[in-house]
Amino acid sequence: MAARSAPSRASDYKAWRAITTRWLDNDAYGHMNNVVHYSLFDSAVNGWLIEKSMLDINGGGQIGLVVETGCRYFSELAFPDLIRVGLRADRIGTSSVRYRIGLFRSDSEIAAAEGYFVHVYVDRKTRRPKPIPESFRCALKEILVSDNGDVAE
Amino acid sequence: MAARSAPSRASDYKAWRAITTRWLDNDAYGHMNNVVHYSLFDSAVNGWLIEKSMLDINGGGQIGLVVETGCRYFSELAFPDLIRVGLRADRIGTSSVRYRIGLFRSDSEIAAAEGYFVHVYVDRKTRRPKPIPESFRCALKEILVSDNGDVAE
Amino acid sequence: MAARSAPSRASDYKAWRAITTRWLDNDAYGHMNNVVHYSLFDSAVNGWLIEKSMLDINGGGQIGLVVETGCRYFSELAFPDLIRVGLRADRIGTSSVRYRIGLFRSDSEIAAAEGYFVHVYVDRKTRRPKPIPESFRCALKEILVSDNGDVAE
Amino acid sequence: MAARSAPSRASDYKAWRAITTRWLDNDAYGHMNNVVHYSLFDSAVNGWLIEKSMLDINGGGQIGLVVETGCRYFSELAFPDLIRVGLRADRIGTSSVRYRIGLFRSDSEIAAAEGYFVHVYVDRKTRRPKPIPESFRCALKEILVSDNGDVAE
Repeated sequence: MAARSAPSRASDYKAWRAITTRWLDNDAYGHMNNVVHYSLFDSAVNGWLIEKSMLDINGGGQIGLVVETGCRYFSELAFPDLIRVGLRADRIGTSSVRYRIGLFRSDSEIAAAEGYFVHVYVDRKTRRPKPIPESFRCALKEILVSDNGDVAE
Repeated sequence: MAARSAPSRASDYKAWRAITTRWLDNDAYGHMNNVVHYSLFDSAVNGWLIEKSMLDINGGGQIGLVVETGCRYFSELAFPDLIRVGLRADRIGTSSVRYRIGLFRSDSEIAAAEGYFVHVYVDRKTRRPKPIPESFRCALKEILVSDNGDVAE
Repeated sequence: MAARSAPSRASDYKAWRAITTRWLDNDAYGHMNNVVHYSLFDSAVNGWLIEKSMLDINGGGQIGLVVETGCRYFSELAFPDLIRVGLRADRIGTSSVRYRIGLFRSDSEIAAAEGYFVHVYVDRKTRRPKPIPESFRCALKEILVSDNGDVAE
Repeated sequence: MAARSAPSRASDYKAWRAITTRWLDNDAYGHMNNVVHYSLFDSAVNGWLIEKSMLDINGGGQIGLVVETGCRYFSELAFPDLIRVGLRADRIGTSSVRYRIGLFRSDSEIAAAEGYFVHVYVDRKTRRPKPIPESFRCALKEILVSDNGDVAE
């Protein structure tokens, strides 16, 4: 299959969160199961949104629906590792954002896994796309690292 | 962002499994969380491998390590849905397989979500890639649907 | 520690549900992790409530909050087992119900694990206890098996 | 039903661990699902054992099998709470230990939930009970708080 690009480095990310692993994250092969990585992506993105007051889980008129995700796995993670999660925005569209997330084992500078996560921001009730508010767009720009400078959807 | 291709149909898949949803699959938005889809992928692929006697979780010299996964989400799934999981192989390499998985709500013919899952088959102890045995290759060919007829790695 | 009472039998239960196991249910010891049993309890009780039209996850004025749970583990369960979940009510109070749940491996008549689950039914908004409606009480009585005939709270 | 005893306090516990919550911990009711508490119990007990060099997940001749667990829920926890997990041993038997675990929201001194967790230590291969080694017994005594001074099984 196609040659894989190298894993990203800690310096490629703009915001950070630490997430503790759990016993049940390890599957029958004794390492963190491939599914768990997505739970860390989900928690990092939503945790950052809550911290920036851009998401109110129970109220708030706008929520982010996930339309696409992906992950590449480079090296094993396992309970009881503490995982550093790096976050950045790759693209900011009218109502959608493509986040990139890297998972790093404790003091490593090379990602053990990295993935992406596309959120479409919708009205909580109608679930129809809604433009990202300006204040949210400003916060997103602080973590934007665009490969090609293109920030249009 | 790029226009999305249409969701696949039930007729695009070759093997089937039924998976029951769980209360905790629904997140704070009342629908099946994006992470859970990968747990269904994992269970469908490994369940099929076990059924075909190609995987012995606790013994067996060869295991499949996941090197890449991805998912596109088209419509909501939610507990208590019963989910039909369609499976096929997209590519069979020397020691790796790219599976495609579709999640269908009960009697729908249109996938609610679809994803892929790349397994590299390795020696359980050394964790080094190991060619897929001929018997396994035969079973895989029964679920192979190649877009371009290319079955080489 | 205290001698343990024997596991219950299939004939001790009144309602049944089948739940498929998942790859990630198995932990590093290769068996279904002790946490997962509770996810099956939760899914069996709520699945039964939904089937009986006694719970509307997204609407409905009354929801069940869990105030106490417990489980005893007798023998191992593991993916890819299909698990038969037996359900009964042990006690029906004014606004609370104590359910008993048994987990059975495929065709076994002896529970591999059994537990209990106490729901207090509350107003969705105020989260204050609310008497169980008469129609719900009737459905519950169909699965009631009281050790001592006492159905008062 | 029986009157419930009051929740325990932070001063009732002897060892501590901090566990981050995840987006998927919140269920359709917007709070941490009752199942997740057990995942935190499991992670706290095993994390403490690993820290004390009393558990080697992948090697080691002795593992702890869970034979009984239970939890009482007093107040809601929810993502993105950071949870402080208090741990103590209630009873130390010949080959079993009863742990008590309290979950505390950030700076609260009153447990939001508390539970117990009975481990029987067995030989990894035969899965037969094996007496707890003296070094392990010493470490356990440091976190022992017995209600009645009885430390016999």
